[in-house]
This record gives sequence, structure tokens and C-alpha cells, in this order.
Amino acid sequence: MSAVPPQIDTPEIMVDADALRRNIERMAAGVAAKGLALRPHAKTHKIPEIAALQLAAGAVGLTVATIGEAEVFAEHGAADLFIAYPLWVTERSGERLRRLAHRARVAVGTDSAEAARAMGAHLAGAEVEVLVEIDSGHHRSGVTPEQAVGVARAAADAGLRVAGVFTFPGHSYAPGMPAEAAEAERRALAESARLLAEAGFDVTRVSGGSTPSALLTEAGPTNEVRPGVYVFGDAQQLELGRCAPEDVALTVAATVVSRHEGSSDVPRRVVLDAGSKVLGGDRPGWATGFGRLADVPEARITGLSEHHATVVFPDGAALPALGERLRVVPNHVCVAVNLVDEVTVVSGGEIVDRWQVAARGRNR
Amino acid sequence: MSAVPPQIDTPEIMVDADALRRNIERMAAGVAAKGLALRPHAKTHKIPEIAALQLAAGAVGLTVATIGEAEVFAEHGAADLFIAYPLWVTERSGERLRRLAHRARVAVGTDSAEAARAMGAHLAGAEVEVLVEIDSGHHRSGVTPEQAVGVARAAADAGLRVAGVFTFPGHSYAPGMPAEAAEAERRALAESARLLAEAGFDVTRVSGGSTPSALLTEAGPTNEVRPGVYVFGDAQQLELGRCAPEDVALTVAATVVSRHEGSSDVPRRVVLDAGSKVLGGDRPGWATGFGRLADVPEARITGLSEHHATVVFPDGAALPALGERLRVVPNHVCVAVNLVDEVTVVSGGEIVDRWQVAARGRNR
Repeated sequence: MSAVPPQIDTPEIMVDADALRRNIERMAAGVAAKGLALRPHAKTHKIPEIAALQLAAGAVGLTVATIGEAEVFAEHGAADLFIAYPLWVTERSGERLRRLAHRARVAVGTDSAEAARAMGAHLAGAEVEVLVEIDSGHHRSGVTPEQAVGVARAAADAGLRVAGVFTFPGHSYAPGMPAEAAEAERRALAESARLLAEAGFDVTRVSGGSTPSALLTEAGPTNEVRPGVYVFGDAQQLELGRCAPEDVALTVAATVVSRHEGSSDVPRRVVLDAGSKVLGGDRPGWATGFGRLADVPEARITGLSEHHATVVFPDGAALPALGERLRVVPNHVCVAVNLVDEVTVVSGGEIVDRWQVAARGRNR
Repeated sequence: MSAVPPQIDTPEIMVDADALRRNIERMAAGVAAKGLALRPHAKTHKIPEIAALQLAAGAVGLTVATIGEAEVFAEHGAADLFIAYPLWVTERSGERLRRLAHRARVAVGTDSAEAARAMGAHLAGAEVEVLVEIDSGHHRSGVTPEQAVGVARAAADAGLRVAGVFTFPGHSYAPGMPAEAAEAERRALAESARLLAEAGFDVTRVSGGSTPSALLTEAGPTNEVRPGVYVFGDAQQLELGRCAPEDVALTVAATVVSRHEGSSDVPRRVVLDAGSKVLGGDRPGWATGFGRLADVPEARITGLSEHHATVVFPDGAALPALGERLRVVPNHVCVAVNLVDEVTVVSGGEIVDRWQVAARGRNR
């Protein structure tokens, strides 16, 4: 029996409202029990209804990646927003930030004296807090704890209010890495917070966390975590062991459009009508495929085109029939949601709502 | 000097109108010189203005991947559409196809007797042609030339008009493969067309081609090619040697937001504000990175997050300054365009237009 309601045309993103609520409550309770504040990353879902559930469950505010995302969530009532990104502020984006700061408490990231000065030039007098980004081992943006003091001084000299530090332990997204990344994050945040305090800064915000590491984080000096993916789960989190199959709250409904029993030189496979334009194309080297079938764990998505997923089945596993409707768990849920304008909300196998992905495509 | 006009906020997709026209004209002339019909794949651009340029240059019609894309281009005047996809037709999608067939000449793909019967059940009496999909070595959808006869018979028995065969040589997208894939395509199409003709079918459409193989295709029995990417070019085509740097007509304008001279254990890099949510996350194993910098060929995009591109520079190459604006060539242009609602059209360094990506997200 298909878990896809008959009213749905494929491919379509379905959100399981019950699993979603459980995920939101579990993370809220787990983070609260550690004495940490939870500031979920809303880039994962981009959906105001989900942000409202997170805030109702005790989140202190939202994390976003861009000014555009912040604008959307502020329009929908979010009162405390952290743009966890090293913004290069221009005259035009500075004007948007100033308007945003009239509606909500706003903090932004920075990781260089130059960016802090550009920010100061365009934000003078605005109520925007700055957090210095620390590189805790991911080697993307961010500075060392020692460099953070210079960045903070430049920000203060440019007239900005430095509130603390943040990091993103992106290297936690790999097998065996969450614990090591969480420890690297703890050390980097503790050291940078200590150096900033020694340099005379009033360090009130020490922010870390990702879905793999959030529940491994302990309070002090870290006082906040910013997981995103936990609301939905995805195939990466499943394969990292950071969520269970029953926790997966977002799947892509797909139809079998092509079916091949295979031969000695051609794989035994079906093709689904969900490709990279609805699943997203992310595939880390350690993943077993381009996503997973929710109800057939032994199948592997070995190829992904824009509108085709090629799913290979082992000998002995029955190939699904043509026209059969299956649920696919995307590898990386944040990029899947960003491909659609709305999602279908289901509960107990019935469609209960449709939600707009209001911040979809807000890349700047 | 930046090639990004000052009015543009980053990240933003820019289309170079002059390179675009040259690409459209070159492919039209090259295909016409071979005596082939050109039916460009519009999933690459999803933009009615570009479809109009292709048709004005002599394209016989458009290829699309979904009924939704076909609907958008039909609304904008396209009169001849091929949905080059093995559709599983339901009552609802059948109704949409019937309406579409009142506006435009419509053909669809099929690769099984079951799918052909489902199609026949919902399209009886509609003017929709069917092309049988052949697997010419990509091993995604499609059947062998021998199996094609059975599929065609099932389609005819279901009341459908079988017009011919098509294939997609997806394995042409790899180094050294275009010529081999083009030859495999030629053989598969010739054999299937011959078998269908022997079985009594009037084979009028024999359709192949992709951007890497289109200009390697010869007429007879193949009479049509369906390249898509050639309108823009992308980093994959650059690295396959199928386009030159000056042919690239689509780039993503990005700003340097983070800059690190590096050390013995940390790479020398900058971070751009264009991540996978505007570039797309595709990276085949043979690609040198997640896209290329248009003006710095020696740089490598070694990491891509949703809003960050990590660009590593070799020793000796100057790191761009913070705030500098650069142009990024996406790896796979079809998925990049699908991430934005509109693109900025530039010519001679000036903004001349903005085009809506009218068929963005039309996955079904």
C-alpha cells in the first residue's frame, strides 16, 4: 500500500506533521535540559508555520543565512534574528539591515576587520549586534580565536556592538565526526570567548551547533545552539545515525516511470520521476546514494538526473511496479525544500494543509 | 575591474545576451548544415524569451521534461513540443495532456507496454504522438532496440500514434566520451528505427542528441537533435572541451565575503556568497570543482555550502580582496537557473533586461 495520498501528483514534497512536531519537541527539550538556548536555523525549512512551531516550543529566536530570509521571517512576526553569515555590507544591503532592525532584534556575523569596517560605515547608529565568526575546524569562513580579538576591535572601532562569537562545525557532517567536531567547537568557542572577555568585551552570546553536534554540546561558555536539519531529518542524518527512520518528517512522493529487470551488463533498476530538481543534487563522498527510499532500505539511488532517480535493487528484492508511488528521503533536506514553492502537509496518511516555502530562493 | 554591473546585488544570475545569441546561432547553423532538425531542450533555461530566440533561429520546436514545462511554453506560443520523458499518465495528467494537445503539437515518450497502456487509457482520441525511448548506453530509462517493437505495438494497440524513437546519450557527459556516446546513439537509433519500420510502423521521428554529442551527430536515420546546455555553456562543458570560455553566457555574480591567506594546515582561500542554492550542487567525479571562476582559471571551488563557495588559490595567484565581485560559472547550468525566479540580462557590461524563469520548479 502506498503511503502517498491519492490526491498528490508526483513529484511532490510531503511533510509529516506528526514527525515534525516530535522532532521540534525533542530538540527543544534536549537543548533546554542542557541549559542552552535554541536558535534553530530556518534556512532548512524557510516556512513561517514551522518557525512558529519552533518558537512556541521555546526557541529564543531564529537563525537565518541571508538578509532576505530575515526579512521574510520578520514579516511573519519573528522578533529575534541572527544572520549567521559573514556579511559584506553595502549601501543597499545596509539600508535593508537598518529597516530590519526596526522590526526585530538583529545580529550579524563578521570575520574580518575590513568587513566590520564596511558594516560600520553603513550601519552607524543602527541597533545591529555583531558576532565574530570562529573557524572551529571546518575551514570555510571564520577566524582563529587569536584573530577574533582584532576583528572585534575593528568592529567596535567602526561603531558596532560586539555581542560575542559563533562557529559552525561543518566537519561534523561525516561518519564518526560529530563528537570530535563538537569538542573542537567547544574549545574554539571557549578560547575565543575568553580572549574577547580579556580584551574588555562583554561577551553575552557564544553560539554553536549543528544538527549532528547540537545534543553533544554542553553549556558554558557556549550558551546557544543553531541546529537546522533536525526538524525534518534527511538521508545524510540517517546514515550518520543522527536520526531514525521514523524521525524523517519530509519525503518526496515519486512514481515509478521506468522498470528494468536488468541483465549481465545492465543494472536491475527502476526510474522515479523525482530527480535533482526536487531532491537536490548533494551527495557527500560517504553517502550510499543520492537519497534513500523511505520504505525500501536495501535499494540504492545510484544516479540522479534532473527528473530521473535511478534506483538499483539487489537480487531478491522485488522491483516495484510501474506506476507505483514511493517516498524518497533526500540526502540534504535544506536544498530540497528550496526547490519548491509549497509543500503538502500530511498527518495519519491524510492531507491536512499546504504550506508556502515563503523564503525560497531568498539568496541575498 | 569587475565584470559585474554596479546595480547588481549578489548572488545574482547574469545572462550575457551577446554570447547567448552567438551560441544559439552557432548550434542552429551547425545542425542545419548536417541536415538535422534542431529541437532544443528548454529545461536548461525555462525562459520564454530564450525559446523565442531558438525558434527564430530555426528550431523546429522545443523539447521539455515535464507536462508543466510544456504548459508554460505553450502559453508563451510554442507550437510544437516534445516531452522527452517516459510519462506515467494518470487521469489528472492525461487531462492536462489533452488540453495541451489543443494548443500545440505534442509528443511524449514511453518505454514500456504498461506505461503505453496507461497512456492510451487516458489519451484516447487525443492528438498526442508517442516516441519509444531507447537506451543507447546511459542505462537510465529506455529499452533495447529489440524491446522497442513490443512497446510500440502496445502503444498502437492502446490507440496511440507511434511516430518514432528517441534516446538520450547521457554517458556523453564525461571526458573522452562524446564521440563514443554519439556512435552508440547512432547505432541504437538506426537499429530501433529499422526494427520498427520492419514491424510496419511509419517512423518519421528519430531523435537524439545532447550538447556534447549534437554536433557529432550525422543525418540518417536520425533526423533531429535535442541539445540544451549549449545556449549557456557551463563548467562541465568547459572541462569537457565542448565550449570555450568566451562561449559561457551565464554566470553567477558573487562577492568575496571572507578571505584567508592560509597556513600550513589551512587552505589559502576566499569564500564567495554564491553557494549551492544559486549554483546548484552537481559535481561529477571528473570535475575539478563545484564550478569555475570565469576570470581566474587557476582557482578551484573546493567546497560548496548552501550560501558559501570556498575557492582555493594556488601560491602565486593573488587572492581577491574582500568585497570584490567575481563571476562564477556553475557546473551544471540547468539546475542553477532552476533556483532563481528571474535572471539579469547584460550586454557590453550593461544591464539590458530581466527575464522571468517562467518554468522554474515545474517538476510535474
